[in-house]
Amino acid sequence: MSRSNFLTGIKSTGRPHLGNVIGVIYPTIFLTKLTKNEKFQNQLILIANLHSLTNFKYIKNNKNNAYKILAVWLACGIDYKQFIFYRQSDIPEVTELLWFFSIMYPYNRLRLVHSFKENVKKKQIINTGILTYPILMAADILISKAELVLVGKDQLQHLEIARQIAKKINNIIAKKIFPLPQAIVIENLIPGTDGTKMSKTKNNIIDLFASKKEIKKQIMKIKTQKQFEPNKVLKDNLYNIYIRLAGKENKEKIKYNFQMGYEHAKEELYKLIINKFKRERTLYKYYIKKTKKLETIFQKGAKKMKQIVNSTIYEVRKAFECN
Amino acid sequence: MSRSNFLTGIKSTGRPHLGNVIGVIYPTIFLTKLTKNEKFQNQLILIANLHSLTNFKYIKNNKNNAYKILAVWLACGIDYKQFIFYRQSDIPEVTELLWFFSIMYPYNRLRLVHSFKENVKKKQIINTGILTYPILMAADILISKAELVLVGKDQLQHLEIARQIAKKINNIIAKKIFPLPQAIVIENLIPGTDGTKMSKTKNNIIDLFASKKEIKKQIMKIKTQKQFEPNKVLKDNLYNIYIRLAGKENKEKIKYNFQMGYEHAKEELYKLIINKFKRERTLYKYYIKKTKKLETIFQKGAKKMKQIVNSTIYEVRKAFECN
Repeated sequence: MSRSNFLTGIKSTGRPHLGNVIGVIYPTIFLTKLTKNEKFQNQLILIANLHSLTNFKYIKNNKNNAYKILAVWLACGIDYKQFIFYRQSDIPEVTELLWFFSIMYPYNRLRLVHSFKENVKKKQIINTGILTYPILMAADILISKAELVLVGKDQLQHLEIARQIAKKINNIIAKKIFPLPQAIVIENLIPGTDGTKMSKTKNNIIDLFASKKEIKKQIMKIKTQKQFEPNKVLKDNLYNIYIRLAGKENKEKIKYNFQMGYEHAKEELYKLIINKFKRERTLYKYYIKKTKKLETIFQKGAKKMKQIVNSTIYEVRKAFECN
Repeated sequence: MSRSNFLTGIKSTGRPHLGNVIGVIYPTIFLTKLTKNEKFQNQLILIANLHSLTNFKYIKNNKNNAYKILAVWLACGIDYKQFIFYRQSDIPEVTELLWFFSIMYPYNRLRLVHSFKENVKKKQIINTGILTYPILMAADILISKAELVLVGKDQLQHLEIARQIAKKINNIIAKKIFPLPQAIVIENLIPGTDGTKMSKTKNNIIDLFASKKEIKKQIMKIKTQKQFEPNKVLKDNLYNIYIRLAGKENKEKIKYNFQMGYEHAKEELYKLIINKFKRERTLYKYYIKKTKKLETIFQKGAKKMKQIVNSTIYEVRKAFECN
């Protein structure tokens, strides 16, 4: 019987989009159902509202964005009582680990991290938080001693850094404080409207919880081939999004829609989305107004997390003779 | 009537040496006496036991080193009830500010800091804590909204970083959370036995609380000119240390000792030190054994500091919508 902790998280940069729902929320619900007989000890869902701050534009609305994320989880039907939902900022011990871990990791190696390099390409001024981002993430993971962490492919490098820090502390302290976290990566994600990974910063998302008009606009934006070629359909971005949502069993139907032209196919995709997520869209509208309920869930989560992190922090402080 | 907070601190890397006593402890006692009628609101003395960790060798004994520092303050006659002595690790909110401040400061500018560059020259692997050291120090200073900070000359750059971060947060949040801290710098410090700044890492200290044998050894190590030249006495390192301790009123006596030869002068300096710090040496031996009393002082300090930092942290969390 497995007694390990499961962890996943979403950064509070706005309302989760279709990519988050397919790549994080559904897999989490699926994974934790699968293991009903081998329950995880704790099932943790982090709202990373400290990480979001590395981009100044997310300071404003940081609080509301955390509510939006929780409302989407609830709208997607998660049995929230089986999970600990917590905001990163409610567990300041994570920043304490940020310092202890900073000592354990060479700064030069942080400059080699993909996400950092991407930022260097795009931005003139890189704040220190962007550099130390992976160390804060290591703190998120290790503070609960989570052994299974559901992450995106692009975060595998961060998880490896968490493992290296865990190993180093275990070695220096000469006892095993931290288990080495394992990544669970979801393959076959839904692409964004431009064919690359769906991401708010790339402005290529489909926002399931937006107005119908907005969703239609996003779908109409989906890049396709110049002309429909039936034998190249698998390379078509619209087709890839469509089949990911409709399921392979509807392949023939989709191909038929494509033969009617891209605009028709997009119309059909729009109808499919509105129909498929009808319940979720209704529930989201319901939950997002229940700020009190959402706040209560976070506060209960923080209380449970405190209990989990207390023993870790105690061990770490002792190891560094800071107790 | 001034109602600002006064702050100073010592890093917990071992027992404070003569340089710390002359450069930090005595000036603190002097400054806070001067202002008896214009009392500071809070007089804070930090034992920086998180900063010490950037050098791995100080992880071991970190706890005892904090006691040693407090014992030296007490031995030097500080009226400890007029001060808040606190260990950095007892106020984890400081690491919370480390994250918020990291977002506010460009990482590239940290690479230009003198102390960082010094480390790059000396060490092959630079841990991230060495890079972000000034940001943690900014957190130390700003968390208590200290307006007057007694620092060494070499830390003026760190203080300037604290001011820049304070300004930036005040600007972005469009309200004045932080007052801009002012530095108090003690000039005319006592040099180390090699003539440069007295510092444990340079192995050029005089340890007032060591055994007599050890002190004698340290004094015998003092670098002098090859040959005594009466008209160049002011450039002599031994002379500079001697006059700093004996006082200018004893100039003629010191010169006489020098004319008797360097060894004689060193013997006389040794006698002076043992005699001058007799009381302090006795008191140190007394206090260092009273671990319970020392721990109580720290715990009372932590409790008082918590009250001071609570309102700062509340304001900062709110500003970043993390409340």
